[in-house]
Amino acid sequence: MRILYHHWLSPVARRVRLALHEKRLIVHEQIQEDWVRDENFLALNPAGTVPVLVDEDGQVISDGNAICEYLEDVNSTPSLIPGNPGQRAEVRRLVAWFDLKFNAEVTYPLVSEKLMKRMIGGSAPDSRSIRAGRANVNIHLDYIAWLTDRRKWLAGNQLTLADFAAAAHISLIDYMGDVPWDQHPLAKEWYVRLKSRPCFRTLLQDQVPGVLPPRHYADLDF
Amino acid sequence: MRILYHHWLSPVARRVRLALHEKRLIVHEQIQEDWVRDENFLALNPAGTVPVLVDEDGQVISDGNAICEYLEDVNSTPSLIPGNPGQRAEVRRLVAWFDLKFNAEVTYPLVSEKLMKRMIGGSAPDSRSIRAGRANVNIHLDYIAWLTDRRKWLAGNQLTLADFAAAAHISLIDYMGDVPWDQHPLAKEWYVRLKSRPCFRTLLQDQVPGVLPPRHYADLDF
Repeated sequence: MRILYHHWLSPVARRVRLALHEKRLIVHEQIQEDWVRDENFLALNPAGTVPVLVDEDGQVISDGNAICEYLEDVNSTPSLIPGNPGQRAEVRRLVAWFDLKFNAEVTYPLVSEKLMKRMIGGSAPDSRSIRAGRANVNIHLDYIAWLTDRRKWLAGNQLTLADFAAAAHISLIDYMGDVPWDQHPLAKEWYVRLKSRPCFRTLLQDQVPGVLPPRHYADLDF
Repeated sequence: MRILYHHWLSPVARRVRLALHEKRLIVHEQIQEDWVRDENFLALNPAGTVPVLVDEDGQVISDGNAICEYLEDVNSTPSLIPGNPGQRAEVRRLVAWFDLKFNAEVTYPLVSEKLMKRMIGGSAPDSRSIRAGRANVNIHLDYIAWLTDRRKWLAGNQLTLADFAAAAHISLIDYMGDVPWDQHPLAKEWYVRLKSRPCFRTLLQDQVPGVLPPRHYADLDF
């Protein structure tokens, strides 16, 4: 049985879940609170972070990028990093855009202040960080609109890991109700297309304990 | 002419330089201070960060991971991500170990406090961050010793991008004189082997303006 150790709040783990389901690989999704020390989990991944994949043959793969490249190596249909070397580089550039830039400007400030502090305790949420995250998301939604005005999907005319990297972060922000969809119709059109794919069902069923998503979170037609 | 936009203080750009030279690809290394707004550079990479590679055919590749994977796609001899899917995943896991974990625990605290504040101005260096970075480096040197006690190189018996990721960060820390080599003979033995390779020469010639490296920085036998 293939097992993915993940957590709802990890955008990189969300990307891996989308990739696994798009490739129709059956997986048991196991929640791992990776901020709690767990010797059994550290034996799988000494970095102590989700996601970690244990494949059917027992092979352990740690780190979200390594898992996505591994899935591409072992199961290239459908390919999520398709095309020639330049096109593949464009997919990876955009994955890094969301995992580094979007994460630093939007996901981390919002998730750490609004959700992590609630889950692990700690000081009161920092309202400046929350305001900054909510303002920054607009720039990224504009960038998604700019890209999808020129291409069918973010990295070109095929669905790729770049779309999943973006959707992984945005779905988490959407769970908190912090995506101003009304002001971004082109980005919304792209997200509706992604959200209606079967691979997305796993994310739409997420229930972060003690935090209800807005009503539209799981609606395919919102 | 192939051009790499990079900066001495970017560990990811250092990894790309090592990979380019190991693959014997001729490249002009162009310093880009990516914290200064530069419209021409933003036109190449809207994220505004180094490294950016402009290949001989004019193809622009942004983001360090994307560049390293691109180099592997177009020039696989020697391969820096060799082996079967599991072995390739081990290389990428260790690249992420250094670019995420080592960076957060060692490189970022030391570089931002000791070098960036000097270069761009700002408040006085935070001595707590510097102490933390200097303490944390020991854990990672122990991990390198543990790995190289079991394998010839970090990810297995071949030199890979994992060694270059580690060496990229460590060479930067070494430039500041903050690697306690005397306490880590096994890690030192691994680093001496890497440092004596021709690909390493480019890093050993670095001269950060206003910051002299310790005498041993460029010595192959230190």
